[in-house]
Amino acid sequence: ARIIVSDAPTPGAARLSIQAPAEIFYPSSIAVIGASASPQKVGYSILRNLLTYPGALYPVNPTRKELFGREAYPSVMDIPGPVDWAVIAVPARLVPSVMEDCGKKGVRLAVIVTAGFREIGKDGAALEEEVVEIARRHGIRITGPNCLGVMMPHQRLNATFDPVSPRAGGVAFVSQSGAVITTVVDWSLPEEFGFSSVISVGNQADLGFEHYLRFAEQDPSTRAIALYIEEIQDGRGFMQIVRQVADKKPVVAVKSGSSRKGMAAASSHTGSLAGSYDVYVAAFKQAGVIPARTLRDAFNLAELLANEGYPHGNRAIAITSAGGFAVLASDYAEAHGVDMVDLPEEVFNELNAFLPPYWNRANPMDIIGDADATRFATLFDVLIRHQDFWDIAFVIAGPTTLADPAHIANEMVRFSRNTDKMVVGCMLGGDSIRSGLRILRNCRIPNFSELEDAFKAVGSILRVRTARPGERSLPPPVDQCPVDG
Amino acid sequence: ARIIVSDAPTPGAARLSIQAPAEIFYPSSIAVIGASASPQKVGYSILRNLLTYPGALYPVNPTRKELFGREAYPSVMDIPGPVDWAVIAVPARLVPSVMEDCGKKGVRLAVIVTAGFREIGKDGAALEEEVVEIARRHGIRITGPNCLGVMMPHQRLNATFDPVSPRAGGVAFVSQSGAVITTVVDWSLPEEFGFSSVISVGNQADLGFEHYLRFAEQDPSTRAIALYIEEIQDGRGFMQIVRQVADKKPVVAVKSGSSRKGMAAASSHTGSLAGSYDVYVAAFKQAGVIPARTLRDAFNLAELLANEGYPHGNRAIAITSAGGFAVLASDYAEAHGVDMVDLPEEVFNELNAFLPPYWNRANPMDIIGDADATRFATLFDVLIRHQDFWDIAFVIAGPTTLADPAHIANEMVRFSRNTDKMVVGCMLGGDSIRSGLRILRNCRIPNFSELEDAFKAVGSILRVRTARPGERSLPPPVDQCPVDG
Repeated sequence: ARIIVSDAPTPGAARLSIQAPAEIFYPSSIAVIGASASPQKVGYSILRNLLTYPGALYPVNPTRKELFGREAYPSVMDIPGPVDWAVIAVPARLVPSVMEDCGKKGVRLAVIVTAGFREIGKDGAALEEEVVEIARRHGIRITGPNCLGVMMPHQRLNATFDPVSPRAGGVAFVSQSGAVITTVVDWSLPEEFGFSSVISVGNQADLGFEHYLRFAEQDPSTRAIALYIEEIQDGRGFMQIVRQVADKKPVVAVKSGSSRKGMAAASSHTGSLAGSYDVYVAAFKQAGVIPARTLRDAFNLAELLANEGYPHGNRAIAITSAGGFAVLASDYAEAHGVDMVDLPEEVFNELNAFLPPYWNRANPMDIIGDADATRFATLFDVLIRHQDFWDIAFVIAGPTTLADPAHIANEMVRFSRNTDKMVVGCMLGGDSIRSGLRILRNCRIPNFSELEDAFKAVGSILRVRTARPGERSLPPPVDQCPVDG
Repeated sequence: ARIIVSDAPTPGAARLSIQAPAEIFYPSSIAVIGASASPQKVGYSILRNLLTYPGALYPVNPTRKELFGREAYPSVMDIPGPVDWAVIAVPARLVPSVMEDCGKKGVRLAVIVTAGFREIGKDGAALEEEVVEIARRHGIRITGPNCLGVMMPHQRLNATFDPVSPRAGGVAFVSQSGAVITTVVDWSLPEEFGFSSVISVGNQADLGFEHYLRFAEQDPSTRAIALYIEEIQDGRGFMQIVRQVADKKPVVAVKSGSSRKGMAAASSHTGSLAGSYDVYVAAFKQAGVIPARTLRDAFNLAELLANEGYPHGNRAIAITSAGGFAVLASDYAEAHGVDMVDLPEEVFNELNAFLPPYWNRANPMDIIGDADATRFATLFDVLIRHQDFWDIAFVIAGPTTLADPAHIANEMVRFSRNTDKMVVGCMLGGDSIRSGLRILRNCRIPNFSELEDAFKAVGSILRVRTARPGERSLPPPVDQCPVDG
């Protein structure tokens, strides 16, 4: 999203007084206003993305009788059944009259993809105010304008002009940049990350981050929330709501635009949360939000939290068959504030009984390069029996000829299923370990392909919070895991 | 590699007095002593990896007449022709007699893969001293013992028991951990990173980091050097040599074992460079070595430097069609000490002439989401004409329906070919951009898949050095680039 440079008054203050009912995010019928047969048009891409939507779908086009095999209507008012959502992709000057029609039709949410509003200056801001006034009068809520749209993969709903659709998963992603969404979704497909919702907030003329947070808080398929924020208009209101949401579900946030140049570019807004990146990070932490510097870090964190919940404490152990990675793990743990606990005497004795004599007798546990999956499994059994002494386990495995990655991955799954402590996979390598990665993904064991990222993510979480006494990890999601824990 | 905990005197001081001739790293004939027909044996994997080696290859096995279709010999002394290298994978206790045979045969380099020497304690240290004494007497140099071996992809030489062989490329990788090599090489294949050599130093009984640095310094296929170091025995000697090498070719180093726990585990050695990570980083920088915290960072840096050389200064520009990435680029530039220059008046005017009116009129240059490859190309032309005002260009492109990634990549190649300034690719996304990534790889344009990594890498380089006046970038390597610059 463009940094907003207009001096027009922002609707932020008025916005929060009205709560958006969560039901509006589960529509039964969608009209695409500005649906088009021309592949260059945004209204073409949106309609095409919505063809898999199982609810009622109505293209609206002034001249076409039919689009993609669906009956088309000249106006939203001509549609026979009720219309919950209107996705609007007509030129900006036509949006007010379209919104009047939507009001008469009883539309509940208008996803206004069209650009040319507040982001282009004074005239656009006036047009946006007009649209908001119409919406208020008719009780329509607005996503956007000037946004990519909304994706709800579990509802098979992609109301955006994004070239691809994401997998269904446990992370709600709310972003102030459409291009960031397009890039993240494209990247998520080969990485096999999935989303419960992807929301492009656009100009936030009506609904804003606060409303989407409330939606994600109660949405049953959302297990963690990731935010990409460029500007927070109502800092106090945002922090108040995000604190409550973060108490129920983990929230991770990338805040950009905090550099000297970035701040100079962004004009000051009444009540906006100004200040350096450090100020934001401090405020986020106070609210229980986990800050991330990069999109990769944010989604690593969100996936980890969606699958494992908060760790119960900061006592960590690490297991590896490679001395080099034991040394690196020590360094990264210390650098990121993860506490490598000493091994209790009885654990030490049990390990000595089956590990080769030259194992390093320390934590991280280097169980020696000739370790096969059975040695990993025997170690895991000891750690399950003694799971009172640790909170987080990093399992580090690289490619070796002696241990089948699929076998090690299956043992990691059994390990994770038999403890409510946090188990973090660090299978490192390339093609040789893909069979193992596939199993970890299907069984929702988080895995990090760069060792430091694992310690960085866990350290970021620990600096914000651990699980409260009695607070359980999230229940395991439905998955394709073949392992009987 | 295991951290060395023995108190035995180290041969480090004596080592440096003798320079290893670089020719020993270009052998014409290799014997594998301990070659085996049994797939569980290390000597099986080594011989199999060497089957593609175009020079003379001699399996040595006490009972076999033939292995993998090659004539086998009971002893190295029975081999008819000369033997430059002996790769030794017999049990530790047999190594001294094998080394005596190698001495009589005139072997120049013994790559001793066998473990069970200094790393296991006093008895092993004594055995290692015995082996070194034999080598000195016969003028044999030693790589190892207790190492993975040596790979020279341009010579089609893989004298290791690694399960895979790396691509040929411009980076020499010298590592104190065999498992780190196995992991990095496996990871490098899908990433399409290539190596000029991969050397596992093992116990460094004779040859050590200093010798391998000297080899890489003069090796014509090496364009950058990456080191993974756990322990530096002779700190002053190492720094003296690495400073000279870094003056000729970029050197990147990951130094592990610097954490409190890691240092406690490592015993102190006479003359060893002790101290915190910060002490190492300061020493590296003084020597012109670029420090990296992670293996991913190290290879990102090495690839960038191998292809682009040092930047001529720290004046950076960034180009993107996504506002979100312009904001993030500003943040990352500031965080990593990369200076985003102001656009000169004449450049500004030229850009205004063809960019849409709502472009952000600043650096990073947001040329708006509807940019196609031609708009990128026109911008590149302006920047080539005015290349006196910048030293480093970040080109940021995500997936869009409007710009073909292959077309954008081709324009990036033309841009890079028409300037000796550093051009850094930041094509972000997943499957949608693969056609573009393929072109960048074939044309040796470095690309970063996470935006911050690009600024982090450039910032790391700038903190150590820029190109000296008159110092040219490295010449472009032979590649499969289809673009006529």
